[in-house]
Amino acid sequence: MTTLLRTLPATTPEMLAIFDDAALLRAALAFEATLARACAECGLIPATHADRIEACCTLDGIDVTVLATDAAHAGTLAIPLVAVLRARVGQAAAAAVHRGATSQDLADTTLMLQAKQGVALLLRDLHRLSADLAILAQAHAATPMLGRTLLQGALPITFGLKLAGWLSGIDAATDRLKHEAASSLALQLGGAAGTRAGLDGKGAEIARRMAHRLGLHNPVLPWHAQRVRLAGLGGALAILCGALGKIATDLALLAQGEVAEAFEPVTEGRGGSSAMAHKQNPTGCQVARSAALRAPGLAAALFATLPGEHERSLGAWQAEAPVLADLFLLTHGALAAMLPVIAGLEVDTNAMQRNLNAADHGSGCGEAAALVHAMLAARTGDQS
Amino acid sequence: MTTLLRTLPATTPEMLAIFDDAALLRAALAFEATLARACAECGLIPATHADRIEACCTLDGIDVTVLATDAAHAGTLAIPLVAVLRARVGQAAAAAVHRGATSQDLADTTLMLQAKQGVALLLRDLHRLSADLAILAQAHAATPMLGRTLLQGALPITFGLKLAGWLSGIDAATDRLKHEAASSLALQLGGAAGTRAGLDGKGAEIARRMAHRLGLHNPVLPWHAQRVRLAGLGGALAILCGALGKIATDLALLAQGEVAEAFEPVTEGRGGSSAMAHKQNPTGCQVARSAALRAPGLAAALFATLPGEHERSLGAWQAEAPVLADLFLLTHGALAAMLPVIAGLEVDTNAMQRNLNAADHGSGCGEAAALVHAMLAARTGDQS
Amino acid sequence: MTTLLRTLPATTPEMLAIFDDAALLRAALAFEATLARACAECGLIPATHADRIEACCTLDGIDVTVLATDAAHAGTLAIPLVAVLRARVGQAAAAAVHRGATSQDLADTTLMLQAKQGVALLLRDLHRLSADLAILAQAHAATPMLGRTLLQGALPITFGLKLAGWLSGIDAATDRLKHEAASSLALQLGGAAGTRAGLDGKGAEIARRMAHRLGLHNPVLPWHAQRVRLAGLGGALAILCGALGKIATDLALLAQGEVAEAFEPVTEGRGGSSAMAHKQNPTGCQVARSAALRAPGLAAALFATLPGEHERSLGAWQAEAPVLADLFLLTHGALAAMLPVIAGLEVDTNAMQRNLNAADHGSGCGEAAALVHAMLAARTGDQS
Amino acid sequence: MTTLLRTLPATTPEMLAIFDDAALLRAALAFEATLARACAECGLIPATHADRIEACCTLDGIDVTVLATDAAHAGTLAIPLVAVLRARVGQAAAAAVHRGATSQDLADTTLMLQAKQGVALLLRDLHRLSADLAILAQAHAATPMLGRTLLQGALPITFGLKLAGWLSGIDAATDRLKHEAASSLALQLGGAAGTRAGLDGKGAEIARRMAHRLGLHNPVLPWHAQRVRLAGLGGALAILCGALGKIATDLALLAQGEVAEAFEPVTEGRGGSSAMAHKQNPTGCQVARSAALRAPGLAAALFATLPGEHERSLGAWQAEAPVLADLFLLTHGALAAMLPVIAGLEVDTNAMQRNLNAADHGSGCGEAAALVHAMLAARTGDQS
Repeated sequence: MTTLLRTLPATTPEMLAIFDDAALLRAALAFEATLARACAECGLIPATHADRIEACCTLDGIDVTVLATDAAHAGTLAIPLVAVLRARVGQAAAAAVHRGATSQDLADTTLMLQAKQGVALLLRDLHRLSADLAILAQAHAATPMLGRTLLQGALPITFGLKLAGWLSGIDAATDRLKHEAASSLALQLGGAAGTRAGLDGKGAEIARRMAHRLGLHNPVLPWHAQRVRLAGLGGALAILCGALGKIATDLALLAQGEVAEAFEPVTEGRGGSSAMAHKQNPTGCQVARSAALRAPGLAAALFATLPGEHERSLGAWQAEAPVLADLFLLTHGALAAMLPVIAGLEVDTNAMQRNLNAADHGSGCGEAAALVHAMLAARTGDQS
Repeated sequence: MTTLLRTLPATTPEMLAIFDDAALLRAALAFEATLARACAECGLIPATHADRIEACCTLDGIDVTVLATDAAHAGTLAIPLVAVLRARVGQAAAAAVHRGATSQDLADTTLMLQAKQGVALLLRDLHRLSADLAILAQAHAATPMLGRTLLQGALPITFGLKLAGWLSGIDAATDRLKHEAASSLALQLGGAAGTRAGLDGKGAEIARRMAHRLGLHNPVLPWHAQRVRLAGLGGALAILCGALGKIATDLALLAQGEVAEAFEPVTEGRGGSSAMAHKQNPTGCQVARSAALRAPGLAAALFATLPGEHERSLGAWQAEAPVLADLFLLTHGALAAMLPVIAGLEVDTNAMQRNLNAADHGSGCGEAAALVHAMLAARTGDQS
Repeated sequence: MTTLLRTLPATTPEMLAIFDDAALLRAALAFEATLARACAECGLIPATHADRIEACCTLDGIDVTVLATDAAHAGTLAIPLVAVLRARVGQAAAAAVHRGATSQDLADTTLMLQAKQGVALLLRDLHRLSADLAILAQAHAATPMLGRTLLQGALPITFGLKLAGWLSGIDAATDRLKHEAASSLALQLGGAAGTRAGLDGKGAEIARRMAHRLGLHNPVLPWHAQRVRLAGLGGALAILCGALGKIATDLALLAQGEVAEAFEPVTEGRGGSSAMAHKQNPTGCQVARSAALRAPGLAAALFATLPGEHERSLGAWQAEAPVLADLFLLTHGALAAMLPVIAGLEVDTNAMQRNLNAADHGSGCGEAAALVHAMLAARTGDQS
Repeated sequence: MTTLLRTLPATTPEMLAIFDDAALLRAALAFEATLARACAECGLIPATHADRIEACCTLDGIDVTVLATDAAHAGTLAIPLVAVLRARVGQAAAAAVHRGATSQDLADTTLMLQAKQGVALLLRDLHRLSADLAILAQAHAATPMLGRTLLQGALPITFGLKLAGWLSGIDAATDRLKHEAASSLALQLGGAAGTRAGLDGKGAEIARRMAHRLGLHNPVLPWHAQRVRLAGLGGALAILCGALGKIATDLALLAQGEVAEAFEPVTEGRGGSSAMAHKQNPTGCQVARSAALRAPGLAAALFATLPGEHERSLGAWQAEAPVLADLFLLTHGALAAMLPVIAGLEVDTNAMQRNLNAADHGSGCGEAAALVHAMLAARTGDQS
């Protein structure tokens, strides 16, 4: 009952591994183990119960299909998962499992643990992409090419200026993602109605310990009913898809047979046609452009869920996790598709010059090269 | 590498089975088998080759993970699938496989075959839902309750009028889905650039035979670059999600503890809380409302892909299939969630009367009952 | 306090005149006049009162700015408008104004009257556009050009086949618009809570007479809480924007300097640049592509409003009218921009041949010309 | 040809005044005047020409309707506006007008000047709203009420905790808006193709002077083809609409007749019904919820424009300004509607207690009051 054939062209095995069922369960079990440990440290449950719970928080022997069916029936994963866990730990420790927590605490913290890994994966590859773009921009700072506005030849620019523009888009999108990650990746621990009832007044200390151990922020208030964090992350991911889509669009236009100024590197078995042996399709650009078309509607869904009702909304918060997961999957698909395209970009500077001459729209690239150098210098300054 | 835990609450095993990898491959192989048969009937390939190809068009021995990885690398499923098929049929018949077709012919027809099954599943359950709603509307045609506008008590209505309204929304959404299905579920056969080159001038006849055998429309032109069909289907599905979400919203409001006029039926193990034993959550409504929040952005993505470039777009058409599949999955999830809710709806007419009296906004339900009867009579007339 | 500078590039004075304040008020006053007349005919109010009300239902002396401010304060246009009208007709007839109706009856019917005019304007111009496209498709049925897939040269097609594809997209979008118009343009008359209370049991007859006089459908139920009609119209408009955007995208790509196969006609003073005298920008295509980017999110908003609460939603229905108006404005802007582009399209068949030769991807256009002729014949058949 | 009747309910005269035609022209003329001054200071044009241009950069005598029609025809405002300005300044100084700039420089900088004012207006009112929410949260920190999850009664909370949650949503949305404003409100000066050709190598200095004078950022690169700034602003505005919509949703649910725990203040002439004298509708909440439904699709449009083509896109960048303007209008409409609602909120603590008792779901609000105090203390710390 998998859907790899539709999923894989749009994403990567690496990001799928962060958002697949096993990863989700691992994160959910980490929540329960950490909660038990923190409860024990604060004296709410015996340390031996926490030991026992921790030991049982493994994937071994969990049947995902059964669990998913039960969760769909119950309306939340927490109910069958906690039941499984309580059965595992035995009668003595059963009541210590999930102490003071509610389904949403488990679901939100799980999602945040996955999002944290997703952000890290994206930042790793964004670092590579921007480094490659900076090298190319430096190399082509003064390479003349035709600037094109409204899909018509305009005045000369340099290819380095175009590359610097792409880089500035990636930088801006990366900054937004970092900013969101710095404010949004947070523990959820509120209990049934967000009051931390049932934690014997130790809620703040338990939350502090859990957040520290899980590597998440510890916000002053539970955020069960304030979903700005997810909307912010979703917006940042959609913007990143757009910045990648921008590069893909420009490149695909430059790779047109009549323009022929830059090309995706040829990769054995990639970009062919089932009907035309001669074709070398810009497959990396295709993936990124596809993501840029799908991401806006997904981000819009996360914005639309913000006005959820009361202390836990009916339908809105349940919509968020699969949509945010899709955004992470699409975004890394786009990024991973563009990485080798930029790393191995084939540039035909002669064709650039030829098209520029043919357009005959004047010469001189203004301050293009100076702009590129200023931009690269400013970046280095930012990072040093 | 499955994602059941996030997918299953939102959809059904039945619809998943229509859009999973095995179903996609079955449809793809049906395309190839039917193409070969039609080519043989028109004299383009020997009948023995068509026999051989048909015999090889089975799922046996196909490793989905390998195929999905190869397809992601190649940029299209057709390339590795045709390669597998050619290897299977042997050297003699290899060239007869995928004759005159292109990757998009395979992908689009496959999607349409799946969409056809998806529509049929939805219509089956819509028939049940509307029948149940009609019975309830009849029964409660004259049951007085408080009408509520802008979330404030207004004037008396009858519960039957509310039910008739829900039914009219479902009817309207069903009509749109039928209308789209009647015009949109079409064979794709255009070849590399949509000209039906490579079919020896027999393209029209081959298409006619294929469409007939596959149970799809045979449009006068290949539609590889005109994607209105998918946008139309997507819009109809989003509207259906909205019509279901409307019922779910009203019901969830009626089920509030302070209102307490109607309730989802209690189902063992469904709608509980991991923290509060007393809770009976409207889990069916939750699923439908969640779908109604997610569907608009997905339909918007299908509208956004319409202006794709030239004879096959770069990124736009590749975005469509997973989005349309998601819409089918979400829509059936919502429908299947609401079916038992309506079938087993618990109505407290005393509470309706009590709230109506308390609001004290006048008496008399106008022509409400007459409207309900007129509406039900008109429906019967439509269907007889 | 107008916003012409941002509005006008995206729409037309003709469609603006259908959706401006004066037109909205005219439609609103037509609702009140028709309601009064029907009430008089059914004996609910004296005919002299209907005469008096009709006579007062004019724009003369209405200050839109005051009315708009009052409506914004009151939360609905009906309250200040009915107050103005009652003051005008005098004390005797005052109570006969707005008899049995509610704010939403006025607002919805007004919107439908405007939508009806909007649809008619679109259909008028769609008829022209499709006629022009059919002529061009016929003329270029056998004109060879390079087919392009994934923004790469593929195999030969004919320009007529591309034109026939555009035409099929416009036809499909037109059919959807007609289908929606045929089912959606409906009178609203439900009264305060949709029960037609306050009309002395004559609601059905009054509605029948009003619908007939206003040229709208008379649905069996008031549809105050079932908003599928508006979602359906919105989806059809977004699809039409997409079909126009498709033409614009292809044309803009063909007009690139390096391709140079087709061009927007040169119009004095249009498509220039404030910085580059040599430029001839594809300004018509720009308008259509802009609309195609904006329309999906607007249609999504109309889908998102479907699950509104109870008998009149809080926020959802108030969102619909401005969004639907924007969609009509954008769609006609796109259509009107593309009309002269197609009517005066400049085609360079030599360039088409030259690019085709340069690509050297084989010769022969398959059945392209036959497909074009079959498509045009089928269209004629449909329309005869 | 205004559209006040549909616009005004959704926005405010204050924000309309920032985005109306006069304001747009004032900002556009400020761009031209500042450009001329900076060019003079850098020696590109005589100071007397800059004086002359500055003196002519007034609205006097500009006919907006003519200008808008001409701009729509030309495809850009800059062409007719620069023509008007050149005619005004006379032949001697004519060439000094718009020196080195292009249409997009004018359009983008104009939009940014308006956005800057829009952000300031929002921040002014957000400051008021959050101050009022903090006072209420403090006052009701320990006021018990029923917590509600999935639209069902859950466990006790305090009203202060709900208010603190609303406040945290507003704080988070405000932070995002400030962060976007701090990075996004930037001068655009790139010239025809973004190279600053035509400024005699003084582009950087001219940009520095213009940005300083206009109160905008001076980015190291022109951003004509990197539109992340507008997408970021749009996302922040949509999130703010969502945070306001969250408050409106909760309040509207609390104001239901059967719940009756909190109400919008009664304002003379606001919230009435044209059919029911007894009604007091939550009109402020209506406006905010309407905005929250419309904003996601608008933000999605700004994300969708990111992958625009080359040095100036065809259709994408032209779509941005009206969409961003709509978002500012809607957001301030929502904010201004909720300000008096919160400032004059009517709270019935007896009803809260009564509903809590009736639900009988346990007593004790956990650490709710402590959470409120901690949150308010943390805020004060942030701001001190």
